[in-house]
Amino acid sequence: MSLTNHQITLAARPTGFPTVDDFKLVSSPIPEPGAGEVLTRTLFLSVDPYMRGRMNEQASYAANVQIGEVMVGGNVGEVVESNDANFRAGDIVQTHTGWQTYSSCSGSSLRRVDPDLAPVSTALGVLGMPGLTAYFGFLDIAAPKADDVVVVSGAAGAVGSLVGQIAKIKGCRTVGIAGSDTKVAHITDELGFDTAFNYKTHTEYGDELKRHCPDGIDIYFDNVGGQISDAVFPLMNIGGRISVCGQISQYNKVRPEEGPRLLWHFITKRLQMRGFLVFDFEARYADGLKQMASWLNDGKIVYREDIWHGLERAPEAFIDMMQGGNIGKRLIKVAD
Amino acid sequence: MSLTNHQITLAARPTGFPTVDDFKLVSSPIPEPGAGEVLTRTLFLSVDPYMRGRMNEQASYAANVQIGEVMVGGNVGEVVESNDANFRAGDIVQTHTGWQTYSSCSGSSLRRVDPDLAPVSTALGVLGMPGLTAYFGFLDIAAPKADDVVVVSGAAGAVGSLVGQIAKIKGCRTVGIAGSDTKVAHITDELGFDTAFNYKTHTEYGDELKRHCPDGIDIYFDNVGGQISDAVFPLMNIGGRISVCGQISQYNKVRPEEGPRLLWHFITKRLQMRGFLVFDFEARYADGLKQMASWLNDGKIVYREDIWHGLERAPEAFIDMMQGGNIGKRLIKVAD
Repeated sequence: MSLTNHQITLAARPTGFPTVDDFKLVSSPIPEPGAGEVLTRTLFLSVDPYMRGRMNEQASYAANVQIGEVMVGGNVGEVVESNDANFRAGDIVQTHTGWQTYSSCSGSSLRRVDPDLAPVSTALGVLGMPGLTAYFGFLDIAAPKADDVVVVSGAAGAVGSLVGQIAKIKGCRTVGIAGSDTKVAHITDELGFDTAFNYKTHTEYGDELKRHCPDGIDIYFDNVGGQISDAVFPLMNIGGRISVCGQISQYNKVRPEEGPRLLWHFITKRLQMRGFLVFDFEARYADGLKQMASWLNDGKIVYREDIWHGLERAPEAFIDMMQGGNIGKRLIKVAD
Repeated sequence: MSLTNHQITLAARPTGFPTVDDFKLVSSPIPEPGAGEVLTRTLFLSVDPYMRGRMNEQASYAANVQIGEVMVGGNVGEVVESNDANFRAGDIVQTHTGWQTYSSCSGSSLRRVDPDLAPVSTALGVLGMPGLTAYFGFLDIAAPKADDVVVVSGAAGAVGSLVGQIAKIKGCRTVGIAGSDTKVAHITDELGFDTAFNYKTHTEYGDELKRHCPDGIDIYFDNVGGQISDAVFPLMNIGGRISVCGQISQYNKVRPEEGPRLLWHFITKRLQMRGFLVFDFEARYADGLKQMASWLNDGKIVYREDIWHGLERAPEAFIDMMQGGNIGKRLIKVAD
């Protein structure tokens, strides 16, 4: 066991897009687990868009990270030492201890990961927060029916890629929007989206959407916002539902971007829009994970991981993900 | 009986704000009622914001008015001659025959108005479309709970004035936004809103709203849109609901106005927004009217009518209403 803990802390609050200088790699002693606590060694850590909000001065739905504090996030780790009778050395667990190689936390905050069910990294993806986000955010918020036309923005991302596949399981017609031809090929050829397009090769998103959705749009699962939403809203069908999961196009704006006011479409088309956080569904996580695992096991859902290696690369991997560099779930492999 | 029917037709499609030149007063013979039809003499006609959409080149949720056609709208009329066994001369009915002094239409399209229940003009207001819009748009779409803080834009209008009163009946705290000090006095002193402000005397709507809603906003009933909504969204509480009834600030824009993108508030606050048309609730109109009549009868709801006289003034009255000139329901009295 290394005697040193490595951590990535927030060095500065970004203005606009973060840079690697907003983060700092520091060393500290490995923490001693206290009563009821468990010391874990990080195997994988997750980088996700929501982390951008935690870097801001102003707290959002959750506390922000203070300057000098370890960046927040979900990890998969191996138990090294346990003062909680429910865990013992060698167990694999999911933690929320952030960007560091070792961490000590209350055993009650850990979720056990079964390494026989699927690769343990999936606890941060298809069988973790992104999977649950897709599951509840699509099924509960958007209430799909067979034959609904479902448009997914950020369709090659950790959540969007799963939403499209769940929509297919439910008999919907799925239309993906992504930011590269490689992503488009991935989501249609490997994930089974009915159709998709690369928004970066079009200037008139509305025209392109119309081509892919000649009968309009019943459900919009939005990870991106901005100009893509501007193009979607006018094409929504009567009674359409919009699930607002993310607005990644806006997270790095210094002040709110301006866009056309389109809320009158909500009246004429009787649209419903609802934003959500996966935590709202915590009481039903077990049900969601069970269903996702069953679909995974049956081959009805496939997933891709986009793994970078080494804690020190987490800032770069995070920034690259915010710029759309990932296909599927972006992870950092910290240790074997 | 006059031998001539007077009608106001659409003379030109407005660009931006309508002018009186977009309308034309014409004469035609009084129509003969055909089989199953009823000839009515208009007593009152209604001018409503939705009519602006019908004047556009492009049809919205309902067919648009063609150049030379009679302007659409709801009327209260007296039956002159009936070929429908359900109606006879002298009956008071609500019709959808538009801006004209006489009209002939199918008896099945008429709703009987009981002159003993309330003044017959109320069939175009508190006991008609605006009343049902307030009733279903608030109770069904916004799902109020006691102690909710309810913000109503266009609070002195035909719909908003009723929403605030229904909200009080349901135990909510009501905050009105209106466009003159007279309106503000009316809605607080006569309608019982807890508080209100005149947005025209403020430039920072958000600051003023915060002063009136120190504990945030649970429900936003929106008749107006635009900058008022920009100020409301950031103050919404977790789980807040937004009922989109109208966007009158936008109806006369030649192209969509731009405004800040604020949809990330929908995520962090888990907001729900839903647009609606009163027609969606047609199957339950009778229930809504019964309840509204009962509240009216018990003095729990009061209403104000803002009546102009003479068919020829309808265009001017309509334009003035679009500019916020009315307090309560704007009507045209066409005949005694």
